[in-house]
Amino acid sequence: MRVLGIDPGLTRCGVGIIDSAGPGRPPTLVLADVIRTASTMETGRRLLLLEAALVSYLERYRPDAIAVERVFARRDVSTIIGTAQASGVVLLVGTRAGISVGQHTPTEVKAAITGSGRAEKAQVTAMVQRILKLETAPKPADAADAVALAVCHLWRGAGQARLDAALAKATRGTA
Amino acid sequence: MRVLGIDPGLTRCGVGIIDSAGPGRPPTLVLADVIRTASTMETGRRLLLLEAALVSYLERYRPDAIAVERVFARRDVSTIIGTAQASGVVLLVGTRAGISVGQHTPTEVKAAITGSGRAEKAQVTAMVQRILKLETAPKPADAADAVALAVCHLWRGAGQARLDAALAKATRGTA
Repeated sequence: MRVLGIDPGLTRCGVGIIDSAGPGRPPTLVLADVIRTASTMETGRRLLLLEAALVSYLERYRPDAIAVERVFARRDVSTIIGTAQASGVVLLVGTRAGISVGQHTPTEVKAAITGSGRAEKAQVTAMVQRILKLETAPKPADAADAVALAVCHLWRGAGQARLDAALAKATRGTA
Repeated sequence: MRVLGIDPGLTRCGVGIIDSAGPGRPPTLVLADVIRTASTMETGRRLLLLEAALVSYLERYRPDAIAVERVFARRDVSTIIGTAQASGVVLLVGTRAGISVGQHTPTEVKAAITGSGRAEKAQVTAMVQRILKLETAPKPADAADAVALAVCHLWRGAGQARLDAALAKATRGTA
């Protein structure tokens, strides 16, 4: 299973792709990248560039699932509108391509990766580096955040799948 | 000149189309409508439906310009993310179709229509009804807001054009 993680933004949009090597085995990093659009451009043109870049990632890397940060109103107000618009384009492009798009909050990502929803950013990045057995952390920060989102999605999904399986087994047991 | 005004939203997205009958003559109303998507749907699917609806309005009505509300962080926080995402889809679809998309704040719309940026909503709707010589106000409220955005765009554009012309004349005079 291949997961594309996106840390949405207009000026910098983090992109991270990981491959699951199967249950109990560590996922591997396929790509950590950043899509940039100039702040001097009109918003419509920036969103169009972002859409084109996302479509090209989907065509080239064919992910099975997409994970994007769930944007909340309490975020930094100076960038929240652009971040929400960028996340909307991710949801749109993914849904249009028939790929399921999961949304995770920063707290959910931190909790999935480090065990604590209040972990520091540096701790999350260090864990991601360890999980993926990388010599250095993915760079820049937006790309690292996107990779963390992808790992979170994989693990939360796997957790859900294990839960579903256990539930199905338990239900069969009582039937 | 035909202007498509959009009051962005996921649950209700207002759509208003007006035709300019030329300088000094009142614009006419072509359409006032609302695009709705169910709040029970996933956001990606709602954005996809909105995109499809907007594309079909562009194909059917072929507007020369689009006007969309500029979303600000100080807006109602419970709906701001969806509103920002919907406005992003409008900017994206318009830019992709090669149509210029203008953004206007609610204050700018009120000022353009009534002369006061602090006018009541009812006053704006009453003025829109009078400007377009309608027997009743466009309904529902979201459609009326979209029509007001279109009128604002037409008038602000016309004002800008007059300013440019005056400036060009003045510049020629001094050259």
